[in-house]
Order: sequence, then C-alpha cells, then structure tokens
Amino acid sequence: MGSQVSESNVDVLIIGAGPSGLMAAAWMAHCGVKARIVDKRGTKVFCGQADGLQCRSLEIFDSLGFADRAWKEANHMIEICMWNPGNGGVIRRSDRIPDTIVGLSRFQQIVLQQGRIERFFLENIKKYSKDQIKVERGVLPESLEIDLSKVDDDSAYPVTVKLRQLSEEEATPPQVPNASKISDGLFRSNLVQEDDEEDLIKKSQARVGASEIVHAKYVIGCDGARSWTRRALGFELDGEATDFIWGVMDIIPITDFPDIRMRCAIHSAENGSLMVIPRENKLVRLYIQLKEVTPDASGRADRSKITPEIIFGAAQKILSPYKIDYEYCDWWTAYQIGQRVGTNFDAHSRVFLAGDAVHTHSPKAGQGMNVSMQDTYNLGWKIALAAKGIAKRDILSTYQSERRRVAQDLIEFDHRFSRLFSGRPAKDVMDAEGVSMEVFKDAFLKGNMFASGLSVDYGPSSLVVKAGDSLKQGDGSKVLGTVTAISEEDFNKKQSLASGLPVGMRFNSFKVLNQACARPWHFQERLKADGRFRVVLFAGDILDASQKARVDKFCAALDAPESFLHRATPSGAPIDSVIEVLTIHSSKRTDTELLRDFPAILHPFDPHTGWDYNKVFVDDESYHEGHGEAYKNYGVDRQRGCVVVARPDQYVAWVGELEDFDDLQKYFEGCLVLGNHGSNANGTSGVNGQANGTTLPIRQ
Amino acid sequence: MGSQVSESNVDVLIIGAGPSGLMAAAWMAHCGVKARIVDKRGTKVFCGQADGLQCRSLEIFDSLGFADRAWKEANHMIEICMWNPGNGGVIRRSDRIPDTIVGLSRFQQIVLQQGRIERFFLENIKKYSKDQIKVERGVLPESLEIDLSKVDDDSAYPVTVKLRQLSEEEATPPQVPNASKISDGLFRSNLVQEDDEEDLIKKSQARVGASEIVHAKYVIGCDGARSWTRRALGFELDGEATDFIWGVMDIIPITDFPDIRMRCAIHSAENGSLMVIPRENKLVRLYIQLKEVTPDASGRADRSKITPEIIFGAAQKILSPYKIDYEYCDWWTAYQIGQRVGTNFDAHSRVFLAGDAVHTHSPKAGQGMNVSMQDTYNLGWKIALAAKGIAKRDILSTYQSERRRVAQDLIEFDHRFSRLFSGRPAKDVMDAEGVSMEVFKDAFLKGNMFASGLSVDYGPSSLVVKAGDSLKQGDGSKVLGTVTAISEEDFNKKQSLASGLPVGMRFNSFKVLNQACARPWHFQERLKADGRFRVVLFAGDILDASQKARVDKFCAALDAPESFLHRATPSGAPIDSVIEVLTIHSSKRTDTELLRDFPAILHPFDPHTGWDYNKVFVDDESYHEGHGEAYKNYGVDRQRGCVVVARPDQYVAWVGELEDFDDLQKYFEGCLVLGNHGSNANGTSGVNGQANGTTLPIRQ
Repeated sequence: MGSQVSESNVDVLIIGAGPSGLMAAAWMAHCGVKARIVDKRGTKVFCGQADGLQCRSLEIFDSLGFADRAWKEANHMIEICMWNPGNGGVIRRSDRIPDTIVGLSRFQQIVLQQGRIERFFLENIKKYSKDQIKVERGVLPESLEIDLSKVDDDSAYPVTVKLRQLSEEEATPPQVPNASKISDGLFRSNLVQEDDEEDLIKKSQARVGASEIVHAKYVIGCDGARSWTRRALGFELDGEATDFIWGVMDIIPITDFPDIRMRCAIHSAENGSLMVIPRENKLVRLYIQLKEVTPDASGRADRSKITPEIIFGAAQKILSPYKIDYEYCDWWTAYQIGQRVGTNFDAHSRVFLAGDAVHTHSPKAGQGMNVSMQDTYNLGWKIALAAKGIAKRDILSTYQSERRRVAQDLIEFDHRFSRLFSGRPAKDVMDAEGVSMEVFKDAFLKGNMFASGLSVDYGPSSLVVKAGDSLKQGDGSKVLGTVTAISEEDFNKKQSLASGLPVGMRFNSFKVLNQACARPWHFQERLKADGRFRVVLFAGDILDASQKARVDKFCAALDAPESFLHRATPSGAPIDSVIEVLTIHSSKRTDTELLRDFPAILHPFDPHTGWDYNKVFVDDESYHEGHGEAYKNYGVDRQRGCVVVARPDQYVAWVGELEDFDDLQKYFEGCLVLGNHGSNANGTSGVNGQANGTTLPIRQ
Repeated sequence: MGSQVSESNVDVLIIGAGPSGLMAAAWMAHCGVKARIVDKRGTKVFCGQADGLQCRSLEIFDSLGFADRAWKEANHMIEICMWNPGNGGVIRRSDRIPDTIVGLSRFQQIVLQQGRIERFFLENIKKYSKDQIKVERGVLPESLEIDLSKVDDDSAYPVTVKLRQLSEEEATPPQVPNASKISDGLFRSNLVQEDDEEDLIKKSQARVGASEIVHAKYVIGCDGARSWTRRALGFELDGEATDFIWGVMDIIPITDFPDIRMRCAIHSAENGSLMVIPRENKLVRLYIQLKEVTPDASGRADRSKITPEIIFGAAQKILSPYKIDYEYCDWWTAYQIGQRVGTNFDAHSRVFLAGDAVHTHSPKAGQGMNVSMQDTYNLGWKIALAAKGIAKRDILSTYQSERRRVAQDLIEFDHRFSRLFSGRPAKDVMDAEGVSMEVFKDAFLKGNMFASGLSVDYGPSSLVVKAGDSLKQGDGSKVLGTVTAISEEDFNKKQSLASGLPVGMRFNSFKVLNQACARPWHFQERLKADGRFRVVLFAGDILDASQKARVDKFCAALDAPESFLHRATPSGAPIDSVIEVLTIHSSKRTDTELLRDFPAILHPFDPHTGWDYNKVFVDDESYHEGHGEAYKNYGVDRQRGCVVVARPDQYVAWVGELEDFDDLQKYFEGCLVLGNHGSNANGTSGVNGQANGTTLPIRQ
C-alpha cells in the first residue's frame, strides 16, 4: 500500500453485482446513500442461470418500480402437470395443479432470464441514484480488514477493502460450450434482447492492475457460492452434497409431448425424473436426472464427462414414448445437488453476507435468485437507514436472525423435495423403497406455498412486535436492540384487530380507492421501497361521530411536537420523510370529503403545492375494477379500525388500537433515532393544523 | 436543383413528427417499410399541448407495445363531477358520473403530457425499425410535385419533395412565456422526466441550408393546423370560428375546492364555465372561459391582450366561493373555438393528410391527439401493405372515406358540446336562453361514448364487408376497389353469428386462455400491429364430432394450395406472414389437446422450432383471472362458432359461417395481391399436413 494507492470513503461497498448485490445497490439508490458496487466479471450474464421469479420477488420489483417490465417479458407459468408411470409403466398425466396458489398474491410465478432482470436493476439504479451508482466491472477485492476499535462508532469507516482493477482477460469468465445443432446466430437475433449496458456501468479510469483502498461503513458480500468475502471473514458453509446428479438444458424443443408449455414434474418408471420449465421466446428449460452418472469415491461427479448428448439422451428416455429433439440450445450445465447454509451472515454488524455466499441448494425449486434478492431486500434498507442516522445501528442484528432462518428453512425444504423428486416412483403401496406419488404431490402443494416467498414470518425483535422467543423464531442467534416484550395473550388480542395482517409477514395487498380521485390502487403499490416506515391508519367509519373522535384523538397525538412522527422527521424536512401516515377508511367514498372529514396530519399541507391528495384511501366499490373488500380481507373491523405499522420492506411490524399511541411511540423509540421534541418539521398540517379547507392558508 | 443537390428514393416520406406523424412512422417500423420522417422543429414538445388519451388510443398503443408505459405514468381519470349553480347561485356538485363508460374497454381514459407519448413512440420506432427510422429534426419541405403519369405505377416514386436543412435558430419554436410565480427549477426537476432524445433522432450530416430531393412512393402530411403539405396540395379547411374564447393553464393548484383531483365540468351562474382535468405529477389543467375577452370586428380575439393573470382571475371568479391559487405554472395559452374539416384527405392516393392538418376543433373534449393518431393508425398499414405489394393500391381510397367521416362526426360533436359548455346555465325551466343542465349532462354522457374512440364504425368497402351505401356511411367520396356487395338481409344473418363483433367496428377484447399453457390473454393482445390480417376461427365445441368435421373441412380448404392463405404468403415465407389464423374454441381446456384435437394448419409446424403454441385459445375459466366469457360477449354460438376477419388495425372486416369459405376467399381476393396457386410457403403444417403429434417429423 504505497502512497500512490488512492484512498476513499464510501458508506456502503457492495461486492458482487448479481441479483443479490444489485438489490442492495437498488436500496442505496432509492434511499440516497453513497455506495459502490464492484464485480470481478467483465460482463453480466446473458443466458442460462436462475430465472424463476416468485410472487414475492415480483411484489418487491413493484416496490422498486419494474415489476411490470418483468411481467411483460416473462413466460407466465400457470399450471403444473404431474406425469407418472401408469399401466405398463408408460408415463401419463396424473394431475394438474395451479402453479401459484390461487389468491395468494396479485402476481403469479413467472420465468425470465437473469440477464433481463439484471438489466432492469441496472436501469433502476441509474435512474434513482441519478447516475451516481454504477456497477464497476472487472474489479477484484484483495483484502478486507475490520477495525474492531471503531465498529461501534456511528461516524467511523471501520472496514478497509483493497480493490484491484483486472485486465479484460482476467475479467472474462470461461465460455460455456454451446450445444446447438445449428449456428447460434440464426435464432439468437430473435431470442436475445439487445442488452448493451454501456451507459449502465462505470467505465474504469484506473490502469489495469492498479489498486485502491476503500474505507467503508458497511460492506455487503454478494459474491456467490465461492464468496471471496466469506472466505476473507473466515466463515464456512455447513452441509453436504447428495448422490443425485442433474443436467440442465435450455432448448427450443421439437416434440409431440403434449405439456411442453406447462411446468411438468415427470417421474419415469426406471429412467429417472425430469422437470419441464417453459420459458420466454419458445425456450424450454429441462432439468434432467442423470441416473447413469455417479459420483466417484470422493463423492463428487466428474463433470467433464457429462456432455449435452448424455443429458439429452437421458431426457429422451424419460419422456419416451413421446419424442423430443432440438436444433437450438441456448445453454446447458450439470450439477450435483448439495445443501449448505453459512455459519454467519454478519461480522460485527459491519460486513454482511447474502445470497449464494451463504446458501446453496438445488436450482429446481426456482428459489435461488429469489431468496438471494430477498436477503438484500431485508438488509439494504436497514443499512441505508443506519448509515443515514435515521435508524439505530442495532437493528442490523435482525438481518442474520431473520434471513439465516429463511435459509435454514429453504435448505430443509430443498432437501426433502430433492429426495422425493430424485427417487424412483413406487410401483405400488408395497414398494417401500419407491417414492409415493401421493406423498410427492402433497409435498409439491406444500412446497408451492414456501416457493411463493410469502410464507416468510420474521420473529420478534426491535423491528417486529410479537410474542414468543426471538431465538426460536430466528436462526438461533441473539437479536440485539430493544425488543418490545409482549405476552402471548396481549399479542393475540392485538393481532385479532387485523387478522389478515399477521405481524412478521409481508403486508398483503387488496384494492382501495384514492379518496380524492377515486382511482383504484393495490394498496401495496403505495408501499414503495423508499426507506420509509408506514403507519397505516384503518380509520374505520369516519362519518360516525364517536369513531371520528377516536381518529381526531389519535391524530392529535400524532401531530403533537413530542410524537415519534415529528421527532423522527429531520428539521426542515417534509413530515412524511421518514414515516408516512396512510389512511384507509370504510365510509362511503361519495359521502366523505378529504378536506372536510380528515384531520390535516393525514393529508399534509405544503405551502408550495397545496394539500397532499395521495394519503387517504377508502375501501369502496370502484367503477371498473370491482370492490377490493380491504377491511374484510385484512380482518379489520369496519367501524373501529386499528393501526398497523409496515416496515420499509413491507413486513407488518406492529398492530394496535387507535388508543395504543404510547405503544406505537415505544416501537419507533426502539428502532429509530428520534430527535428533540418539536423539531421544526416543515409541511405538517398547514398553519396551526387547520383541517378545515375554508380556513386554508392561501395567498389572496 | 443543381447537380450538387442529393437525390434519393424512399417508400414513404412523413412530414411532421407529432403524434400523428409518429404513428405513421411506427407502422412503417413495425411493417419493415423504408421510410423517413422529418420535422421543421428542432426539438420535441416538453410540456402543455394535448394530453388526454382515449380508451381506443390505449388499445392502439398496446398493439404497438407501449400502452403499459402510458398507463403507468399517466393520471387516471375515474369520475366526472358536474358543478352548477344551486340555491342563491352558489356552485355545488350536482352529479357524479364515471369518466369512462363501464365495460367499454380494458382501458380507461388517462392524461399524460404529449412529450412523454412522443418519447414512447420514438423508442418504439427505434426498436422496431432496428435504428433505421429516426426523426430528422430541423428539416423543412420546400416543394412537392406529383408526377401524374406515374401515380398508377406500383413500382414508381411519383412524388418529389425538396427538403432544406434549417439552422438551429430557424428550427427553434418561439418560447411560450411561463407564468410561474416561483423559479421554474424548484419543481421542474421533479415534474419532468429526463427526456434526452439524443439517441432517438437522426443527426443531420447536411450543412445548414443544404437542400435535397426525395422521390417517394407515398407522402403523409402530418404537419399541423397550418400544414405546409395541405397548402402545397391546394386543399382547404372548411368551417368557422365561434365567439367563445378560452384560456388554458397547467398549474399545481393550492385550493380548498373539494374535487380538484376529479375531472370537473363547472358552470357558474354568471362568470362562465371551467373544466378541471387533473394530471400527473400534481398538475391540474384548467380550461377557463374568458367571458370578458371578446373578438374584434374581424371575428378574431387579440391574443396578445390575454395574460395568465386575466385567465386565472376568471378561474377564481368561476370557482368562488372556493379559493384557488398557485405558485407553479407549467404552461398556459388561450384559444378561440373553431371547427374545421379538410376538403380532401387524399391526393391521387399518393399524398395524404392527417391529424390537425385536416381537422381543428376545441381541445376540451380531449379528442385532438387521439383522432389524429387514429387517422394514421388507419392509414399507415394500408400504405405499408401497398408499398410492399401485399395489398392492392386501391384500398388507399378507404382512408378518406373512413377518416374524413370521423372528422365530420368529431366536428359536429365538438360544435354541439362547446356551445352547451360555453353557455350560461339556465336559471329555471323558463330561461330559454340558458343551457339546461339536464341537457348538458345528457350530452356529456353521449359524448363519453364518442370520446372513447370506440363508436367509430367504418362503412362498406373492399376492406369491410357490410350492407348499405358506401357514400352515406363514409365521407361522401367514392370508395374505389372491389366492394363485396351484400344485401341487408344476408348481412344481418352473418352479423348475427357474432353479434358482439359489429363489422366496421374495432374487435372488442375479452380474456381467453392459451390452450397449450393455460395463460390468460386479453384477446386483443394477440392482435398486434404487425401489418397482418387475422382470420379468427371460433371453432366452437371441437370435441363434438360433427363440429370437428366442420372445422376439419374449413381447415382443409384453408390449407389447400389455392387458398387465399397460401396464395397471400410469399414464396419461402412462414404461412402466417401475411394472414395469421387464430383459433378460439369452447370445449373444456383440460379435455382438449392442441396436437390431438386441432388440425395442423391452426398451429403450424416449423422444422427448426417445432409446433406453434401461440395460435389456439380457449374460452374457459382461468385460475387467477376469472372467466372471460368470450363466446358470450362476442355473441358467438358455443357449439357452432363462426369465422371473423380482423384488419391489421383491429377493425372487424368480415363475419361468416365455417362453410362460407368462398366468400372469405373473395374478401382477400378483393383487397390483397394473391400469388399463384400453391406457392412454396414454408412452415405450413409439417410433412403432408400431419395433425397427429405421434407422426410428427422428427430427426431420430
């Protein structure tokens, strides 16, 4: 480290620009945090690799602003067909089930290649960071040090990373041989969208081989299964490989198999199993069990002996008597199923690991990219708010307890599912060594809930107020910070106020109407990923005088100078900068008026732009999109309502009565850095909080 | 015209790059036609100007591929509130009606500034033309000549246009003074999306002042109300101005008026009328009647005397006792209502006029941009197919008969509506000079149907097979080409086969499922703007043996070498290149199989990519999006089905029985250039038209 080596500070350094790293960078862009993201590869992925998108991933994309792009380009998977040996051992369709459980989410599972998803991230990051955050390609980390004397100092940059600029050759990943029987160019021009990323990555000014020193407040290692960051920290992956070897091919099939455009789980009698995943652009992905390839004495299969011919030959046997062939192959690979979880996700709450760096498993369930992105969707806002001084640093310990638990659950699910899918189907009920197709179907149905990403349920912490043991509900590691203890009995009482919004799970979405303009919105569309907490006031029947009095009282507390809302808002900033208050009422829309019926704090006044028309919603019938029945679906009493807190990542954090203001205040005191009483927040509620439009402050 | 002047040929030259010209260019891009588009302005529009989008415009955008972008960014108008004088003459809300008639379309009316719409067009044209068509800015046409000796020669370039490259100064439109009370920068940064069009326009290589000669097969003049092209052709606009003077302002209002985020029609007792159009980004457009400004002796108002203060003062009076103010004004203008229609839309079927060049009217009904774009949506594919030699050139005469009639209807509607809106409200039933608010509401409701763009009903021609007089149903001008005459009685019989698909109107959309993958699609999503006609086979109950026999017979005729389908397809091209056959059947999806139950011509085989899985649909329940009830909504018998032809612009052209193959053949003989019998079209139906998957041609 000579004096020529440049040194700089950055709030957050992200190592690895796959979906997990890009999700972290997206948070930094949306929250306005100074960040860098580096990747040792010279280009991004163009084909192959993980590409299933769960409902929850699409909800998350929507919170960032690009779910619509994925939805439009992807193949939509609607139905799963199960094929098993029938009479005479010939495969036949035994069952059809919906691919996504009906009613679970406003999205269903789709398939789109990772390259396009990375493209959406890059454009989103460029837009929200105003060109400030761009991926730096061909950059390799060489050392990482944490200065333990500084890890508790909010203003310090305790992590030092040395980076080196690679040559183009060093940064180019080895090419995968292509198995197409025809020249690639013929189809490629139609299949692949132009993905020139020129303007989306940062051109290095550094000379090849040049090193630089970066001092970071936080480092996030998203650098894959062979994570450099994980090894630098000395952490391990726990788990083991199995004997099951699988091949994967992305082809345009020429076949008479009837369900080639359905997702299929096919168990042949003797030739192994196959999964069909129909994709965009006529492509179909086949996961093919390779029964004739076996691991050597060391337990590892020799991948060099596996060719596309071997893989496709296995597929043809499994699908027999149906015929399948192809001319175009987009990508192929082979893998040995293994399940491993990282021992640690967090080093001193300064360096974090996410994605494949801390969990590996079989790709068939379409979980990998989703869980990896969801890791950093959980982590990103916590780091952003801590870096900005808005949240207490100790909320960062919830990352490991929340996400390592998910990884443990994932590995358990994958373990069970892989064995059922790789096993030979039972010939009859007496065939104890075979896999019962009934048991498999049952596992598939249960797995579907898990695979949606919507069964995640975070345990109690300073961010989630619920009953029970945080160790048991988390990954077993201690969760720091002020945990608001609540008894099982008290919690159940509160939870029953909004039975459709379980604390610890993601805020479900139903349609509500904007009070001011009658436009229907899926409520989740109003919970954008901008780093803000939301207090959702279910105001109940606002036209009822006694209920109105309850709402007025709640709002008066909210608008008092010592309230968490005013204290969380930086001096001079709009009142909704850190915590946004959203209202859903249950009176009839046309009987209600925004300015007349709702306290000003619910639709704050700005002297330059007038009242805020985008914060009060109503659970009522729309002209064109039906009735969302939000109160019914959220399990909230239409008369009395309740109050719910959503975290910046849309997880339900707290439920209470309108009278539980003190508990609500405690929640935010527990996780946010609150300022002095009565900070000079701007744009609160007009002069003296007038709620009545006739006295609105107006220049004559 | 010295020898230094460069000369070149182009199929289509488009003059003017507003929405109308861009729509024409989009067709050329989607159809692969060589085209140029020039505009005398140096930059595109950034604020103000027309910005309401009808249902039909959104359907059209969807056919091009960018309705989703407009839908996402726009403000959605849901409800219209009518305000009139109540007791004591004080305005009060008298009515609420849905802004878009419920059930009319899968889209509702929205508002988005023209600059964004132009942006979507530019990106779409770039993508589909593979960078070949880009707007050439700062280019002025100087002369136009039509060589009459060549207008009937298909291979000729009979139109000669001289173009001149303007200097930057010449190409810069005069700046509109801004009425903001605060510095623009404060809001502008948030309001306006970055609209750098660097890569979307063609940089001129020509030196300023340089001229060039362009020989074109076709020229489309989309150059606005003061159209140079119209004047060069010596055509006129017929009509007159009224006494009504209106101001327009786009502001961020600071107000206590309760319905400022609704579309409002406000009649004050004595101070004139006002329309509120809520827009994106907190903006609201106000159309304000200026009762105190009157035309001079010549009938024209002196616009130089109209200031933002005068306009806004009028708005404040009309809205009284509610208060309104603003700090930020995005744009303002004033106009005198006039209604005019072009005498001719077509010169020798070689030069055409579209948009404001042939119709002007008041902007309040939000019609202008829509009707203008729809002009060229009607014209573009006709020119593209004629230029490519696919369609007969005489179909071009239908442009004037179809679109001039729409312009006439528009002007009539606008005339009536403007007078009702500009009139003083009647004090009581005895007040004959005042406008009855009942009459106004009724006109508004009827106008809503017209304003959706979905009431357009084209008359009989070689493109539309229906009964009646083509002169009466058109603009009065003669329609060339082979008109398939049909009696009223015969036509009514055919029309009753698909009562929900009136011939001459746009193909309505309901959800159907893809047979092969169960994905729900709005059927209109399958009618993309790629220049192809569609034969929609409502196959009925395909599992019924007698119905299957009818379908088989129809398909055998379709797949015969002498059928219009084979004859329309160029030698060597895929069978769906010019005419695409789409099927909707009514059997249960899960009882039906694509390869087993449907003749191969309905899902053609390609030796490189296998069967086509995107052409057969089913009217059945979906898992996640309900039941589209397509047969019921289209008024088609579930057992027997029928056949419907959709033009490339989605208008219903022909309805018949499965047995009416000869009539269908005649339809295409009437409008397309058909080749010899049995041309060597590729990718038809596999070897010998095998429909049965088990004998599919496959390499072993």
